[in-house]
Amino acid sequence: MAEFFRVVSADQFIEILGRFARLLSERIPLDTSLNRTLSADVVSPEDLPEGARSTVDGFAVRAEDTFGASDSIPALLNLVAAIPMGVLPDFTLRAGEAAQIPTGGFLPRGADAVVMVEYTNAAGLDAVEISRPVTFRTNVLEKGEDAKAGQALLSPGKSIRPQEVGFLAALGIREVNVYRRPKVAVISSGDEVVPIECKPSPGQIRDANGHAISALIRASGADPVGFDIVPDSAAKLRETLGRALTQADVVTISGGSSVGVRDLMVEAVSGLPGVEVLAHGISIKPGKPTLLASRAGKAIVGLPGHPVSALVVAQVFLAPFLRYLQGGILEKGPAGHRMKAVLSTSVHSTIGLEEYVRVRLEKTADRTYAASPVLGKSGMLSTMVNADGIITIPMNTEGLSKGEAVQVVHL
Amino acid sequence: MAEFFRVVSADQFIEILGRFARLLSERIPLDTSLNRTLSADVVSPEDLPEGARSTVDGFAVRAEDTFGASDSIPALLNLVAAIPMGVLPDFTLRAGEAAQIPTGGFLPRGADAVVMVEYTNAAGLDAVEISRPVTFRTNVLEKGEDAKAGQALLSPGKSIRPQEVGFLAALGIREVNVYRRPKVAVISSGDEVVPIECKPSPGQIRDANGHAISALIRASGADPVGFDIVPDSAAKLRETLGRALTQADVVTISGGSSVGVRDLMVEAVSGLPGVEVLAHGISIKPGKPTLLASRAGKAIVGLPGHPVSALVVAQVFLAPFLRYLQGGILEKGPAGHRMKAVLSTSVHSTIGLEEYVRVRLEKTADRTYAASPVLGKSGMLSTMVNADGIITIPMNTEGLSKGEAVQVVHL
Repeated sequence: MAEFFRVVSADQFIEILGRFARLLSERIPLDTSLNRTLSADVVSPEDLPEGARSTVDGFAVRAEDTFGASDSIPALLNLVAAIPMGVLPDFTLRAGEAAQIPTGGFLPRGADAVVMVEYTNAAGLDAVEISRPVTFRTNVLEKGEDAKAGQALLSPGKSIRPQEVGFLAALGIREVNVYRRPKVAVISSGDEVVPIECKPSPGQIRDANGHAISALIRASGADPVGFDIVPDSAAKLRETLGRALTQADVVTISGGSSVGVRDLMVEAVSGLPGVEVLAHGISIKPGKPTLLASRAGKAIVGLPGHPVSALVVAQVFLAPFLRYLQGGILEKGPAGHRMKAVLSTSVHSTIGLEEYVRVRLEKTADRTYAASPVLGKSGMLSTMVNADGIITIPMNTEGLSKGEAVQVVHL
Repeated sequence: MAEFFRVVSADQFIEILGRFARLLSERIPLDTSLNRTLSADVVSPEDLPEGARSTVDGFAVRAEDTFGASDSIPALLNLVAAIPMGVLPDFTLRAGEAAQIPTGGFLPRGADAVVMVEYTNAAGLDAVEISRPVTFRTNVLEKGEDAKAGQALLSPGKSIRPQEVGFLAALGIREVNVYRRPKVAVISSGDEVVPIECKPSPGQIRDANGHAISALIRASGADPVGFDIVPDSAAKLRETLGRALTQADVVTISGGSSVGVRDLMVEAVSGLPGVEVLAHGISIKPGKPTLLASRAGKAIVGLPGHPVSALVVAQVFLAPFLRYLQGGILEKGPAGHRMKAVLSTSVHSTIGLEEYVRVRLEKTADRTYAASPVLGKSGMLSTMVNADGIITIPMNTEGLSKGEAVQVVHL
């Protein structure tokens, strides 16, 4: 093969992934924006609230009319109105006056505070006794206090949670600009690989990779695009890769853990016109035989053939890359959440390789967590299933010792 | 009102929610099962692998033939075959013989170990030199080592991740039994509330609650079912609630933060035939005026009218309840992930109420996190948007001190 044999470190691999441009943005309805990332500022079209509103049930007053009020010497105010919900009062509250107001009700002009109903007593039908003083703006949400017209409310890069949906809905914002979700081609290859619908003949295996990688793509907020399983033929691989590059934003291809078949995949990828091979191997374990290439700004990720290696590489690199393309921050490591634990046994590691060790977590008596490596041969899918998360052993260490504090990323 | 005025603690509220039965299960395609929870054991239909497979590129051997082999005195074995991928070899490897085998290839009968190609040298066309000994089963994945026919692989309560999808796909399992996703009715009420499509008249407000709660329901893996906004009329509320109960598994209703309107909602809920009010108020802040009722095994959750209170109650109670109905564990508190932080200022709290304080997180110089309460009046939606998470102040404390360690739940 002609291309430069380029093995990179995990950190370099992430750096190279970061050179790909984020996807373009699209405008989508607010109600479908959950977990999407904003690609542009959201500017408030109006004041929220549009006028001063009460935050309690009580009486709108001029604060100065309540100064000095107490249980023994209450302030007596004229009750001039009962303000209903959903109405902007059209009168002005004058000195010595009060108006009954519900939580969320709009204050009349002149009123600048609300006394909670608990600190009032009816004094006939047209007066109310106030037994506690309130200061300016007590129990009042000012006009524009939550959002001001023209104010930038949310910035690009912000991920939409239910509270952002509520906030934008309150302002009448029904569409948002977000980064597009990547379409990710999922290609499985191998003469021995059959669709999971088929009963494999002796010696054949089912396409576990295709389904696991598709699920991981979905879990990363992207859309998998499935392709037929490709036999071990450079021409067929090239044809499928070419088709995938026209249909998807990112192309993944897995299969071929033996050297001969790996070479075939590398040949097919590097033989595409206009392709640039960016990495040919990562100094990691598992997952060393990972390939990264680009064509016309689209990434082609050649995953290892071993299902476990493929899934670890997908968790550690593909998932954050897909989040990054959608506006997220590009960080090495699975997109799961991180927690601290104490290693329950020593773990050996190879100098020169960054290792990802699957661990099981157990709560200990002192309410911390113990992380135990999941035993089992490297090719066993059950080791992934039995793991709660993974820990990373840095490149230039011989391992980690029992009792050491580690960071576990939930898978 | 006739019904018993029943204020419960946060813990009691969770305990009451736990009395509702989980939803029934359904059988769904494996590829749509991500993040769903198994409702039944998954039993392996076959052995995985179906025969012994090599985990490396190399030569299948009888281990005893390699004993004592070294660089200086290699073992010389007759090369009898090159095993292709996807084929179960039909010959028996005899003493003194080796067969070339790719990673993932199936071992012939008689072979019990594989020597990595790195420790071999070709010796003509029909012999190979082995320079390292291997022991029984080295570089071999045994028949059934990953999964055995009849073995329970996954138990009810297990949530499906990409690795479970891959594992089950490898076994040809194309459908799984999972708990059904709840349909959750979202009812907003209030004379002043208008759909977000409408320009509110002065004094009206947009239905922020409906959209925020729907988003939270989606984030909890459930399906919101929207209803028209209901005006403040007990008859209309009752009619809508009745309809919602026929269409949904759980009914939420929000709106009415003023006492009069709250009473109307309580009246409408408790007036439904066959309804039992289980809680009428929780000793929490915000979110005290929360209502919980049941009819025919379905929960009716009356959320506070304040959008912020409604969303906090939904995060702390509704989200875990919806996860529980789908097979998850019922835990108080938002479904987000938990992390430790140090409080950057003291926070006061009311004895007798469990308080949820919105906080912002900032990384400190020593790589820990500082949690700062988000300032702003209780009714401000922007305080939810500005928060990274919430902390809980227990019921019987007066607050937390600056510098105290707190657990932050990401929202």
